[in-house]
Amino acid sequence: MAKQETFPQPLVSVDCVIFGFDSNKLKLLLLRRANEPFKGEWALPGGFVNKHDADADATARFKLKDKTGLENVYMEQFYTFSARKRDPRWVVSIAYFALIRIADYIAKAGKNAIDTMWWSVDDLPPLAFDHKAIIERALLQLKRKIRYQPVGFELLPERFTMPELHKLYETVLQQDLDRRNFRKKMLSYKDLLLKHAVPRGGAPHRTPDLYSFDRRKYDELSASGFNFEI
Amino acid sequence: MAKQETFPQPLVSVDCVIFGFDSNKLKLLLLRRANEPFKGEWALPGGFVNKHDADADATARFKLKDKTGLENVYMEQFYTFSARKRDPRWVVSIAYFALIRIADYIAKAGKNAIDTMWWSVDDLPPLAFDHKAIIERALLQLKRKIRYQPVGFELLPERFTMPELHKLYETVLQQDLDRRNFRKKMLSYKDLLLKHAVPRGGAPHRTPDLYSFDRRKYDELSASGFNFEI
Repeated sequence: MAKQETFPQPLVSVDCVIFGFDSNKLKLLLLRRANEPFKGEWALPGGFVNKHDADADATARFKLKDKTGLENVYMEQFYTFSARKRDPRWVVSIAYFALIRIADYIAKAGKNAIDTMWWSVDDLPPLAFDHKAIIERALLQLKRKIRYQPVGFELLPERFTMPELHKLYETVLQQDLDRRNFRKKMLSYKDLLLKHAVPRGGAPHRTPDLYSFDRRKYDELSASGFNFEI
Repeated sequence: MAKQETFPQPLVSVDCVIFGFDSNKLKLLLLRRANEPFKGEWALPGGFVNKHDADADATARFKLKDKTGLENVYMEQFYTFSARKRDPRWVVSIAYFALIRIADYIAKAGKNAIDTMWWSVDDLPPLAFDHKAIIERALLQLKRKIRYQPVGFELLPERFTMPELHKLYETVLQQDLDRRNFRKKMLSYKDLLLKHAVPRGGAPHRTPDLYSFDRRKYDELSASGFNFEI
């Protein structure tokens, strides 16, 4: 019935901001566009909501798979961008974000993409459309999230050291965090972190302890929230 | 250029969830639809994004004024609803919410509305479209907000009593809160609440103290967030 309407109308798209953490850097999955507009430019994976049977969530999952090969990624809708000039075709875009462990996924250039690559968030290429603004808002969202919910399970390897967790928080919050206070704070969330026995042959006084998250406690804290102040 | 696209496409609309607090009840502004679909049913104020020069925020402000007479209301975008069956015309709706003092505004039925009315949130009429689901999500958003940011300035009269503030929190969180702990917690946010001198002629031991928010501290806590646990 959409076609019967006589007033001008925007198109609807989705865009996916996929964050990963690797080599102590926060990264972002981008693709190079094979088509106009912005042909040859880097952009977020996404596409038009144009199937009668797919809502925005399903479209985001489908487009991500279609364009980068990534599937089974849990994405959260975070904001809808509607400035008239964001796209020459007048497109309102529903934006999603996800946190993933880069090593768990193999990204490859799919449909309408020349190339797919992980970019360090602090060293991004020029971007198509208003994707810079979308990424900035996603970063704000991630910063807010990390203050109220545990974040890390999705970004770190299954077993990680306290310095790695510390670095992740410093990177996302873009501020220095006192190492000792951080450690104390993290260990204060009862049962959140499991400490593993030192691997055989490891030299206890030189090898940092390995931790993993207790999934149940992690999910509980994700649902109830906390206030991470340091 | 939208018309040149050949694939099926949804329309885009906005919907406004306007909360107010009155007689110790959380209320919601609804209007009765004058047109199909859902003619005669109650619905959230809103309308189509159909002007080239108006993004979703501007459309929400315009539609709210057009349909209810309310203006200068600060609204926050909180979620976009896109289920295929939410509207027979295939409409993706960007939803906004706002908190207002009912007494500060006069709502009247505007364009395409038979009637406009404040409804108690726990006693809503049957609603058009998926507006029940939109309202439920807005209530969740408000619950989350009240745990991380001060909420009240927008909903209470300028001067209010501690029992009134307590009732507001109980109503939004839908749970009983211990009166003494609540008071203690609220007063623990340094400089957030200003206590006023008892009005002349008042009997100090029988009249509850009057408070107002310190706007600067309120804004500061709104920006930085806290964790309200009681």
